[in-house]
Amino acid sequence: MSIVIVGSVAVDTIETPNGKVERALGGSATYSSIVASCFCPVSLVGVVGEDFSRRHRSVLEARKIDLRGLETIAGGKTFFWHGRYGSDPNERETLVTELNVFEKFSPVLPESYRSTGYLFLGNIDPDLQHSVLDQVGDGACVGCDTMNFWIENKPESLAALLGRIDILFVNDGEAAQLTGETNAIRAARAILAMGPSAVVIKKGEHGAMLMTETFRFVTPAFPLENVFDPTGAGDSFAGGFMGCLAAAGDTGESTLKRAMVFGTVSASFTCEDFSVARLEKLDYGDIRRRFNEFAGMTAVGREI
Amino acid sequence: MSIVIVGSVAVDTIETPNGKVERALGGSATYSSIVASCFCPVSLVGVVGEDFSRRHRSVLEARKIDLRGLETIAGGKTFFWHGRYGSDPNERETLVTELNVFEKFSPVLPESYRSTGYLFLGNIDPDLQHSVLDQVGDGACVGCDTMNFWIENKPESLAALLGRIDILFVNDGEAAQLTGETNAIRAARAILAMGPSAVVIKKGEHGAMLMTETFRFVTPAFPLENVFDPTGAGDSFAGGFMGCLAAAGDTGESTLKRAMVFGTVSASFTCEDFSVARLEKLDYGDIRRRFNEFAGMTAVGREI
Repeated sequence: MSIVIVGSVAVDTIETPNGKVERALGGSATYSSIVASCFCPVSLVGVVGEDFSRRHRSVLEARKIDLRGLETIAGGKTFFWHGRYGSDPNERETLVTELNVFEKFSPVLPESYRSTGYLFLGNIDPDLQHSVLDQVGDGACVGCDTMNFWIENKPESLAALLGRIDILFVNDGEAAQLTGETNAIRAARAILAMGPSAVVIKKGEHGAMLMTETFRFVTPAFPLENVFDPTGAGDSFAGGFMGCLAAAGDTGESTLKRAMVFGTVSASFTCEDFSVARLEKLDYGDIRRRFNEFAGMTAVGREI
Repeated sequence: MSIVIVGSVAVDTIETPNGKVERALGGSATYSSIVASCFCPVSLVGVVGEDFSRRHRSVLEARKIDLRGLETIAGGKTFFWHGRYGSDPNERETLVTELNVFEKFSPVLPESYRSTGYLFLGNIDPDLQHSVLDQVGDGACVGCDTMNFWIENKPESLAALLGRIDILFVNDGEAAQLTGETNAIRAARAILAMGPSAVVIKKGEHGAMLMTETFRFVTPAFPLENVFDPTGAGDSFAGGFMGCLAAAGDTGESTLKRAMVFGTVSASFTCEDFSVARLEKLDYGDIRRRFNEFAGMTAVGREI
């Protein structure tokens, strides 16, 4: 099956101890779409300005991502972010955020997108996430990301949204903020009570936990010798996770567990170079090889 | 096979948000010995004072731990530690440390201990760890723990020690301090170059990584809903790890991987109650059940 991905498409200037890249391709929908395109056909919904370069667009086109849902605003400028990482990749400082055309983003799904079986709502205003859901059929499996800003500023819209989605992706800090529980299991259980049938709590370099009503699954991160640029790792995790579900065409326990590992290894590739540089060259064979390497690094048989 | 375990035997007063326990049984050798006793016969080497109660001793005796190596100093007082944990179990404050008889500890192995095939050196002065190694045969498989204090204050003794042991257990902060590398893989590789054939880097609630010259293995922590008291979790990890090796009688790749999971689940039991309260009731059946639960929470097959 194919997947529709809605979120930000951006231009990023990123500084890390490894160097600096200026006006590189970024945005939540960008990372998750490129990764998901290794698994299944992807249709993107987003907005850019006239300054969005042919080179940037060609990266998405090369992945055969359907861009009929990518609106270009005449005379507008693309969402711009400038951030800097210290020697600890978990500490990042935002130097500039210019929302530009993203400030007035009002996602409109082309007719052909609306019957999608799989939908990923990247981190945008929950009001907009609602409007996307209003445009798709009831049968879609919906994954959703959010962030501290919306938890603080749009709690009611977000609460209503949680009743309409299947899988919530949050990091550990957001899960604590959303539920008041610092323990990951209690936070996950509280989130399940809010509506989703599954929740993924991401812990960056410390891995992730999936919890549903019937089982839980934990993964360490794929150990990397050099975290070159962690920008987009969480979006890539969600892209690999949702791409796996769409490709499998089911959301059973075994597929959800595989999706956790696909998310984990997808995120690891993203961290290996600036922006989407590593993802541009990524294919399913690379992902599968690292999946198997990861399985070998974590697998033990049962003890009789 | 059996194992000899050398380290501290202590009396701990522990405060956590869950309450307070006074003068409870503690110490690195205590935790690792009780856990290891679920796997194989254990012989302990340590020192206590006259105040070490019959009740405390009976906990070790009930596990059939050989206490001929536990010296009692007439008129002396047992190593005492008083610590307090905040709502974040990773933050602990030491209120009192009284080394007492531990300050002059000079481990002497009873004759019957010296031909042991497995030895675990809990965190004590590396000079003393050397003296223990001088007393055992060359063929023993030696696991060793250390801490920031010795890395800072006895670097030469510790460096020489690393050339004499097989497996080093350190936490991530200690690995960084020992090697100057904050990345876990680079730190692990640097430690292997110092002598051990395997290194385990522990990350508390974030799991652990094992690295040898030929493979690596990563485990998340066993997810706990309530970390009641984390005291002794690292020692319990080492006890489960080394106990597994001694019970198996080999240190091949498959046994080392199983040892990582046995260490992980052993540590999780320790955190479920104050001091050794949970461990007192622990048996191999409990550990095996949780091992299999953990395997189910982490296992994915290979992708073809």
